[in-house]
Amino acid sequence: MTTTTHALEELRSSLPSGVVLTEPDAMEKYRHDWSRNPPAGMPLAVVRAENAAQVQAAVRWAAAHGVPVVPRGAGSGLSGGSNAVDGCLTLSLERMNAVEIDTATRVAVVEPGAFNLEVKRAAAEHGLFYPPDPSSYEICSIGGNVATNAGGLCCVKYGVTTDYVLGIDVVLADGTLVTLGGKRIKDVAGLSLLKLFVGSEGTLGIVTRAILRLVPAPGPTSTLVATFPTVAAAAAAVVAVGRQIRPSMMELMDRASVNAVEDFRPMGLDRDAGALLVAQSDAPGAARVEEAALMEQAFLDAGATGVFLTDDPEEGEMFVAARRMSFHAIEARGSILLEDVGAPVPLLPELLAEVAAIAERHGVEIPTVAHAGDGNTHPIVVYDAADADSTARARAAFDDVMAAAIALGGTITGEHGVGRAKKGALPDQLGPDVMALTRRVKDALDPDGILNPGAIL
Amino acid sequence: MTTTTHALEELRSSLPSGVVLTEPDAMEKYRHDWSRNPPAGMPLAVVRAENAAQVQAAVRWAAAHGVPVVPRGAGSGLSGGSNAVDGCLTLSLERMNAVEIDTATRVAVVEPGAFNLEVKRAAAEHGLFYPPDPSSYEICSIGGNVATNAGGLCCVKYGVTTDYVLGIDVVLADGTLVTLGGKRIKDVAGLSLLKLFVGSEGTLGIVTRAILRLVPAPGPTSTLVATFPTVAAAAAAVVAVGRQIRPSMMELMDRASVNAVEDFRPMGLDRDAGALLVAQSDAPGAARVEEAALMEQAFLDAGATGVFLTDDPEEGEMFVAARRMSFHAIEARGSILLEDVGAPVPLLPELLAEVAAIAERHGVEIPTVAHAGDGNTHPIVVYDAADADSTARARAAFDDVMAAAIALGGTITGEHGVGRAKKGALPDQLGPDVMALTRRVKDALDPDGILNPGAIL
Repeated sequence: MTTTTHALEELRSSLPSGVVLTEPDAMEKYRHDWSRNPPAGMPLAVVRAENAAQVQAAVRWAAAHGVPVVPRGAGSGLSGGSNAVDGCLTLSLERMNAVEIDTATRVAVVEPGAFNLEVKRAAAEHGLFYPPDPSSYEICSIGGNVATNAGGLCCVKYGVTTDYVLGIDVVLADGTLVTLGGKRIKDVAGLSLLKLFVGSEGTLGIVTRAILRLVPAPGPTSTLVATFPTVAAAAAAVVAVGRQIRPSMMELMDRASVNAVEDFRPMGLDRDAGALLVAQSDAPGAARVEEAALMEQAFLDAGATGVFLTDDPEEGEMFVAARRMSFHAIEARGSILLEDVGAPVPLLPELLAEVAAIAERHGVEIPTVAHAGDGNTHPIVVYDAADADSTARARAAFDDVMAAAIALGGTITGEHGVGRAKKGALPDQLGPDVMALTRRVKDALDPDGILNPGAIL
Repeated sequence: MTTTTHALEELRSSLPSGVVLTEPDAMEKYRHDWSRNPPAGMPLAVVRAENAAQVQAAVRWAAAHGVPVVPRGAGSGLSGGSNAVDGCLTLSLERMNAVEIDTATRVAVVEPGAFNLEVKRAAAEHGLFYPPDPSSYEICSIGGNVATNAGGLCCVKYGVTTDYVLGIDVVLADGTLVTLGGKRIKDVAGLSLLKLFVGSEGTLGIVTRAILRLVPAPGPTSTLVATFPTVAAAAAAVVAVGRQIRPSMMELMDRASVNAVEDFRPMGLDRDAGALLVAQSDAPGAARVEEAALMEQAFLDAGATGVFLTDDPEEGEMFVAARRMSFHAIEARGSILLEDVGAPVPLLPELLAEVAAIAERHGVEIPTVAHAGDGNTHPIVVYDAADADSTARARAAFDDVMAAAIALGGTITGEHGVGRAKKGALPDQLGPDVMALTRRVKDALDPDGILNPGAIL
C-alpha cells in the first residue's frame, strides 16, 4: 500500500462507515461551489461529518498528515471559497443540520448545515425572526452564512450575519473544539475572537454550531416601486430616505437589468427607466403607512417619473420577485461573472457610471442590481464562455470593476466573500500592512496552513 | 545621564513641546481610571498626543526601548484598563477630539478623545443619531468606547459599539498605522480585523480615528415605570415584552437600589417593591403609543402591582433620571466595587437571587441595577474601605458574583471590559483553550507585549 492509501485507511477507521467518500464520482458534487470560479481541484477524500467530534477527528487526521482541509456547507458560495484544492480533505457539514429555538432567550441554536430558510421557518413558528436574508436563503447554509458574514436584502434595516451571531463552537486547526460567546446578548470578556471567526471563510477554523440572535417578527410590509430617469436620481432618493427612516428594503435595478428581466419574463417594467427602486417598510402599526408615504414623497422629490405604492404584502411581493428574478434573467443571457462590490452610499452613481464605462470599454454587458441602501452592488458581467476573446474581456471587466470600487473608497466584496475568485484583488484594497496583519493572524491560528489554503490569502 | 534619562530626552526631542509630561504631579491625573481598582503604578512619562503621527512616534519609541504603553481616553473606565503600570508610557488621546459628520454617508469621523456626548450632539444637529449610550456618555471618550465595546441603556434596541464601528485607524505595536474598514456599510474583504480590535482594550493597538455609523434620529419616547412584587415577576415581563417588540429601554432596579435612591433623594418610589422596571419606546409615529400599551399590558399580565405610563418625553425623563441616579445614590453609601455581569435574559431571577445570597453570606450590601432587556446587570458591592474586614468581604463577594454569572452560562463583563480588575476571573469563564487562543492572537499582534500589559491577560 502507498502512504496515501495507508493514511486513507486510518481516516476511514476513525470515522463511521459512509462518512468518508473517496470515489471520484461520489466526490464530484463536493468539488465546486456555485461560482465554479476558479476551476476546482480533486479532493483526496470527502468527509460528510455527522457531529463535531467527527469534524475534530477529520481535522486531527488532516493535521497529522499535512492534508489541506476545505470546509463546505451547501455549496452555494459565489467566490470559490469551498472549491476543492488537489489532494485536500473536503469537509462537508451538510449532514449537521439541527435547528433548535430557545424562545425565552430568543436564540436559535443551529448546526452549520442547516439552511438559512430552515432557521427562518423554525423562528417564525414562535413569532420570531432571523433577519439575514441572502438572495440564496432557500439553498444556502448557516455555516456558509457565518463563514462569509453573509448579507442580503433586509440588511439595510437589520444588519448582517455577524450582528446576529452570539456564540459559536469552532474546531481549530489542531482539532481542538472551542466555544466562543454563548446565550448572552452583551459580552466583552476577552478579545472579540467570536467576531474574528465570523467572515473568516474557513481559514481559521470550522464552525460546528452557532447561537443566533432572533428578534420579534415584524408585521406586514408596504412596497414601493419607483422609476427614475437616471441612476443618480435614484441614488439621491436612497440618500434622502436613509436620513429619515430605516426602510426594510432598498433595492436598485439599472436599465440593463430591468431590460434583462423584461426579456426573460415581461412584467411591464419601464424599459426606458434609468433605474428602478424597489423599497419596503415593515414598521409597526400605522408607522408602516407613514414610512411608505415618506418614501413616496422622497422618490418624487428626487425626480421619480412614476411611483407605485401598495400596502398589500402579496402585491408587493410580486414586485420584489422582479428584483429577485433579475439574477436568473441575467444568467439566461450567457455565462456570468458575478460582482459584489460596494461603495459609500452617496457614491453609487459614480460606481455605476464606472461600471457602465467598463462595459463599454470591454464590449461586454454588465447589468447591475444593488442593495442600494447599503451601497452594495452586483454588477453581473455577461459573456460567452465558448469564446476565448469574450471570456478574456469579461475577466478584464471583472477586475476593472473591483479596481473602480477600491478607487471610490469601496470594497471588492460586500457580502459574498473573497474566496478564491477575488483574492488577487484583496491586496489592492487592503494594502501591504493590512495584508501582513492578516497573515500574522492566520499564521497564529493555523501555523501549518491546512485550513482552506488559497482562500482569502 | 542614566539610560532612562537618555531615553526620555529622545522621546521629548521627537515630539513637540508640551506633549510629554514627566513631572509626578502633572502625571498624577493620568495614573488611574475611575475604578482605581487595582491600584495604579507610576508612569515614566505621559504623552498627550495631538495626532496619529505623534501616537506612532510614541509607540515606536516605546517599542525601541521596551517600555510598556498604556493608552487612555477620558479615564472613565471601570475595570482599571487604563491604570498605569510602573515605568510605562501612558498615552493619552484626550487632545485628539475632532468630530466630523458626513451627512450623505451617515457616518461620524471621530478622533478617540472626543466624548460620546459630542458625537451624539454633532449627529443630532443633522437629524442623525449615534445610539451607544454608556451611563457615562457625558464624560467617556469614543476611544474608550471602542476599546471596551461599550454598551448602555438603548443597546436593547440599537446594539453596542461594535455594531456602529465601520472603520478605524489603528497604530500597531511596532508603530505602523493601518486603516481597517471605511465609509462602507457592508464589507467582507479579508478577515474581520476591524471587529477584533473593537473591544481589545488597548492590548492589540491604539485607535486614532473611528468611522461610526449613524442612524436617523428617532422620535420622542413613551416611558413606563412598573412596580413588581419580585425580581422574577419583573424578569418574566422583560421576556414577554422581548418576544413581541424591541423597546428602546428596559432597565431594572432591585429593592436595594430603589431604597438607595430614596435614601439619597426621595422620589416617591415604592420602597417595598421587589423590583422596578423603567421601559421606553421610541417607535415611529402612532406605533409608539401602541408599543407602550403593549408593554403596560405585559407588565400587568406578569403581576405588576402598579404601572405608570407617560407619552410626555420630559415627564418620562424624570423617571429615567431615577435609574441614572442609582449609581450616585449607591456610591454615597460607601466605597463600591462595581460589577458588570451578564446572563441569558430568562436567567436574570436566578442571577439576582445568587447576588442576594452572596450579599447575605458575606454581610455586604449589593444593590443591583440592570440593563434587563440584555441580561446585563450591575450588582454594586458597598463596603467600608477603612475597614480591612469589610474590604475583604467585599472582594470575596465581587469574585463570587462573577462565579455565579459563569455558572449560569453568563459573562463576567457585559460592557465595562476585563481590564485589570477582572482578569483573574477571565480564565474561569473562557477556559484554558480559549485563553491559549487569546494568547496566540495577542502574541501575533504584539510579540514584545508592550501594549497595555496586564490588561485582559
